Amino acid sequence: MTAWQDDPVRLRLDLAYDGTDFHGWAAQPGLRTVQGSVQDALARVLRLDSVQVTCAGRTDTGVHARGQVLHVDVDEEGFRASTGRTAARPTEALLRRLNGVLPPDVRVRRVTETVEEFDARFSALWRRYAYRVADAPELVDPLARHTVLVRQRELDLGAMNVAAQGLLGEHDFGAFCRRREGATTVRTLLQLSWARDGAGLAVATVRADAFCHHMVRALVGCLVVVGERRQPPGWAADVLRRGVRDPGVTVVRPHGLTLEEVAYPPDADLAERSRTTRVRRTLPEVCCG
Amino acid sequence: MTAWQDDPVRLRLDLAYDGTDFHGWAAQPGLRTVQGSVQDALARVLRLDSVQVTCAGRTDTGVHARGQVLHVDVDEEGFRASTGRTAARPTEALLRRLNGVLPPDVRVRRVTETVEEFDARFSALWRRYAYRVADAPELVDPLARHTVLVRQRELDLGAMNVAAQGLLGEHDFGAFCRRREGATTVRTLLQLSWARDGAGLAVATVRADAFCHHMVRALVGCLVVVGERRQPPGWAADVLRRGVRDPGVTVVRPHGLTLEEVAYPPDADLAERSRTTRVRRTLPEVCCG
Repeated sequence: MTAWQDDPVRLRLDLAYDGTDFHGWAAQPGLRTVQGSVQDALARVLRLDSVQVTCAGRTDTGVHARGQVLHVDVDEEGFRASTGRTAARPTEALLRRLNGVLPPDVRVRRVTETVEEFDARFSALWRRYAYRVADAPELVDPLARHTVLVRQRELDLGAMNVAAQGLLGEHDFGAFCRRREGATTVRTLLQLSWARDGAGLAVATVRADAFCHHMVRALVGCLVVVGERRQPPGWAADVLRRGVRDPGVTVVRPHGLTLEEVAYPPDADLAERSRTTRVRRTLPEVCCG
Repeated sequence: MTAWQDDPVRLRLDLAYDGTDFHGWAAQPGLRTVQGSVQDALARVLRLDSVQVTCAGRTDTGVHARGQVLHVDVDEEGFRASTGRTAARPTEALLRRLNGVLPPDVRVRRVTETVEEFDARFSALWRRYAYRVADAPELVDPLARHTVLVRQRELDLGAMNVAAQGLLGEHDFGAFCRRREGATTVRTLLQLSWARDGAGLAVATVRADAFCHHMVRALVGCLVVVGERRQPPGWAADVLRRGVRDPGVTVVRPHGLTLEEVAYPPDADLAERSRTTRVRRTLPEVCCG
């Protein structure tokens, strides 16, 4: 085992995973988590005792990702040595080796050397999630049963999109969050729209600077009530304004949710972005689900 | 338990399944099969001792379906009774009840009363399969790992499409089939083309009047050799002409294969179509994989 050396290299890893068999992102003793699996794989490939990674969105149990991003600092000497001193492209060698030791439900899709100002969590401009719903028997695909919620009644996407308009912008999303003491629930919801995909599924695209805990699933749970015509579209904005959890809003199941993309500014603006983000949130918290 | 009655009703069931945990379509004692699961569910819902169904394409172990079609004869009296005498739409009631007892990896997507001339197997005009390949690390999606083959080298779809042209039409596909004694291996390949889907995966669309055993997976295995530039495009037609299995052609793994669609003529032409199909094949055999 090598100890940490000088000259750290900051790596960005783009990650995809099937959340079905993980107890969410965050490492927890004795539980199978995505963070734990990735840190174990990195430690093994880089021959270190332990490795600490930071991700863009700490997904809950059962939530999936196609576009998770994390950063990790590794010492340059060890990094080059572990990937083979002759490797022309050590990041590609690391990608191959990591995927060789990771379980099949987590894949590293890209490894890049990045600048020290890049912070997977604090540099992010926005996170984009998708939530998928099959709302008719002919749309239920057993091949997608781990990533799509099944509902019995057809959803009125038009009404849901009208309702969603009333939620866009910067608000206190306390009505849609599991509150954590000292943490702000003010977020900027940049996009919340529903459309049918090629297979006919109802898919919500939800994009915000960041999300508080359970926020995407509570927003979807609220709009599903409107889509099933159990409440009028204006009800969603009413719930938001009241600022407290509404018993009519169910936090929908996690398996329909996938973190699809995280956006970052150009390298030159990274440091400024991280500073802004840290200042704006009382206790910075970037999670989801 | 009711015995079979007079006045049978022929039902068409459209089916989707995840083949991962099934020993293929065909019922086998002591093994979990799709046919066995569907027949058990029908018998339970219709309160019969046993039910026999006939499908369009008998998929191999690990092969999936989104567009499988089957027919089954049920006695009208029992059918109406089991779905509730007051049910305005007994086929919808049956759909709901079947999906209530079927395991989550098989779903009935539609139930329709059809004419007695409809035969899921012999009336079919063609079957369409898709085979999906991820040929770069950034295309590997753990959420699709049960339905997509992973290859390390980038596929040249242009070369594969040139090669595929030489296989279209009516031929003896003996070079691409596991031979069965007395069964003809003459088939009409209507379409074999490769394209990138929205996610960037290489997807083969393979359409034929019918397929012999292992035919789709051997055709894909042949074209992958061309796509990886280990053989020139003309090699595929050479293999076809020689008429015997080529050691360079691997039958690719089943999990990348999905039965997507089966096409039938209008009801008025069904009887004629079944007669033609039965006559044309020495020993009628409709399978795939």
